[in-house]
Amino acid sequence: MAYNAVETITRKRDGHRLDDDQIRWLIDAYVRGDILPEQMSALAMAIYFQGLDDGELATWTSAMIASGDRQDFAGLSRVAVDKHSTGGVGDKITLPLAPLVAACGAAVPQLSGRGLGHTGGTLDKMESIRGWRATLTDDEMRVQLDRLGAVICAAGPGLVPADKLLYALRDVTGTVEAIPLICSSIMSKKIAEGAAGLVLDVKVGSGAFMKTPERARELASRMVGLGQGAGVRTVALLTNMDTPLGLTVGNALEVAESVEVLAGGGPADVVELTLTLAREMVALARLDVDPADVLASGKAMDTWRAMVTAQGGDPDAPLPVSRHTAVICATASGYVTRLDALSVGVASWRLGAGRTRQSDKVQAGAGVTLHAKPGDRVSAGQPIMTLHTDTPDRFADAQAALTDAVTIGPRAPAPTPLVLDRIG
Amino acid sequence: MAYNAVETITRKRDGHRLDDDQIRWLIDAYVRGDILPEQMSALAMAIYFQGLDDGELATWTSAMIASGDRQDFAGLSRVAVDKHSTGGVGDKITLPLAPLVAACGAAVPQLSGRGLGHTGGTLDKMESIRGWRATLTDDEMRVQLDRLGAVICAAGPGLVPADKLLYALRDVTGTVEAIPLICSSIMSKKIAEGAAGLVLDVKVGSGAFMKTPERARELASRMVGLGQGAGVRTVALLTNMDTPLGLTVGNALEVAESVEVLAGGGPADVVELTLTLAREMVALARLDVDPADVLASGKAMDTWRAMVTAQGGDPDAPLPVSRHTAVICATASGYVTRLDALSVGVASWRLGAGRTRQSDKVQAGAGVTLHAKPGDRVSAGQPIMTLHTDTPDRFADAQAALTDAVTIGPRAPAPTPLVLDRIG
Repeated sequence: MAYNAVETITRKRDGHRLDDDQIRWLIDAYVRGDILPEQMSALAMAIYFQGLDDGELATWTSAMIASGDRQDFAGLSRVAVDKHSTGGVGDKITLPLAPLVAACGAAVPQLSGRGLGHTGGTLDKMESIRGWRATLTDDEMRVQLDRLGAVICAAGPGLVPADKLLYALRDVTGTVEAIPLICSSIMSKKIAEGAAGLVLDVKVGSGAFMKTPERARELASRMVGLGQGAGVRTVALLTNMDTPLGLTVGNALEVAESVEVLAGGGPADVVELTLTLAREMVALARLDVDPADVLASGKAMDTWRAMVTAQGGDPDAPLPVSRHTAVICATASGYVTRLDALSVGVASWRLGAGRTRQSDKVQAGAGVTLHAKPGDRVSAGQPIMTLHTDTPDRFADAQAALTDAVTIGPRAPAPTPLVLDRIG
Repeated sequence: MAYNAVETITRKRDGHRLDDDQIRWLIDAYVRGDILPEQMSALAMAIYFQGLDDGELATWTSAMIASGDRQDFAGLSRVAVDKHSTGGVGDKITLPLAPLVAACGAAVPQLSGRGLGHTGGTLDKMESIRGWRATLTDDEMRVQLDRLGAVICAAGPGLVPADKLLYALRDVTGTVEAIPLICSSIMSKKIAEGAAGLVLDVKVGSGAFMKTPERARELASRMVGLGQGAGVRTVALLTNMDTPLGLTVGNALEVAESVEVLAGGGPADVVELTLTLAREMVALARLDVDPADVLASGKAMDTWRAMVTAQGGDPDAPLPVSRHTAVICATASGYVTRLDALSVGVASWRLGAGRTRQSDKVQAGAGVTLHAKPGDRVSAGQPIMTLHTDTPDRFADAQAALTDAVTIGPRAPAPTPLVLDRIG
């Protein structure tokens, strides 16, 4: 083929469309090593500024999918529906959601990742359960999906290898934030997973990747377009991430809260978002069930226990608890009007719940528990957070991240909706 | 230092200034290998879009200079003045200019390069002279400059090593065209060379790097600002590069034409540009001489012969001639209204006068001679160009580049000035 890396970069840099064949050539040449990392990063930056139109994005995404293997869940006895969250602070929703939607009758294949930075990873959370293992073969995954309807496991190396290369490159070159590249990274994996339906939870706010509703809406609508174009029934919800979800941030802490939700309790926002996403997934799977009834019946808890057990975990084992705690108290009396998600996420990360490098280990028990949320009335000196860690020399850095995390005012704030918009 | 590559890239990407210390850290870390090529190329692309302000550009340029050695010509018996051309087709001006300005009494250190792409390199041209060698030690260069007043030689490896690295990176990543990076690449070397004065010949038009007067003017005024800020008296001329300079394009062909000019003949445009640039350089050196008188006196030719001889060359040896020629004839009768510089440059490159890769060898005799220029009257069937090569299988590709190179019309075109503007 007559394409050339420099000509491809300058064409995009100058605001022109890339040909379909040119995009396919590019992704293939990059995976083969014929395009240098320094060429791909320059192109990624050009895409940050010049974008990809819908046609280019669809071709780019399908070229990434073509770099690896596709799953095919058409042979299952259940309809496969998937969910993806763009990542937030305290976002443990996958844990109660997957068994709940499975208990409603769908198959939920959750190929998940580990955390990097201030948002936690689903696998890190699950690995705080004694004995649980993240790695399954494709066959094990299919058998478990067919039998129990849900699996949370690590994506295999064959799933979109182009994305693994490209994501690692974007991470060190300041090009993570390019919206078309975010879309193709997420959607290539989701389309390759082969589910019939997909619900996207696009987080908006201080603790999210997308800080403004405008950017979140753009990301959501482009992903919905990509999914629908690839034959996947796709819906996106824009949800608030100015405040952490629930009352826990950290690995084992979030598992415990998820189990509370499955047991019929748990914080109202976590329950609301779990049920809202479950209803969307059940609708995409064309099942006529109300997830609230299924949750109340205890069947979602049964599925959770079976899922954990099937992957070697002990659902009755006590969860790890960190060795040291420190309490943060309210500095004034009044109403909590703001509790900043990013600050809490960074504090939890610094306490040991998150990673700075891929190779870092996480502490299972580390994190933050919240004793008050926006709208709650507090008195000066009352504990509002507890910090947890095995390494108490980290308290000072975590507390520094929380200096401006909480605002207390004389009046209760207007309630903010959890779901801001729905697209698709 | 507390700087970080990703934070530096995203800061520029988002349109913010880089700190002076951050720029110095960046260039130093890049030369040491602590910043990856893929990070530097992403930053270069961000700079393409967001630019560098005058302060950032001055710091960037001085950080590049600090990566290597500086020359110091203050101890010479003559005032050193330098010239740089941004590169054009048939641009052999350095060859007659350096000995002419030397014969006027200045010192002209021309540290030159080899060609890449459709514009030729001064060293490639000089190397078509039997025995001439491009490599001199710093001491040899100073002795020759003091004695003869002119030297054309290769830049040593110690001159701005950061630019060598960065230019090779930009060349493969579509970031050559970033104006601040062009400015700092050219000016870091010129400032490090240590001349008291500098004339920039910024080419504009189809055969030039800058296709529009606006971009050329921006480049010129930023380079003039950089030079003056660094204490170098700097002037820029914007000159026309829609049409090749003179009647020859190629290595030995251009040497022959340069010698004609030194002998008092040669094409009018080459003579005009040589004298115009020489007057600027003589003024910067604060000498009270008219270069036209010096050219007419034969002293410039004497200096040329001495320069060539001093570097091992034989000024009386016959120049190489290619083994094969092909003639291109006018397809209509009338006036030549356009003769496209880029087309002729590409044809000459394809005939063997230029390189595609740094490692390619050039043919000394290859190139194009022009028998008509814009404004000349031609008859259908009359030869208007001769192509020269040692490898006749290249004629077809060269002819293909020339398909639309010449326009012939019923009326003579309005004459276009050679010098379009002067800045500084």
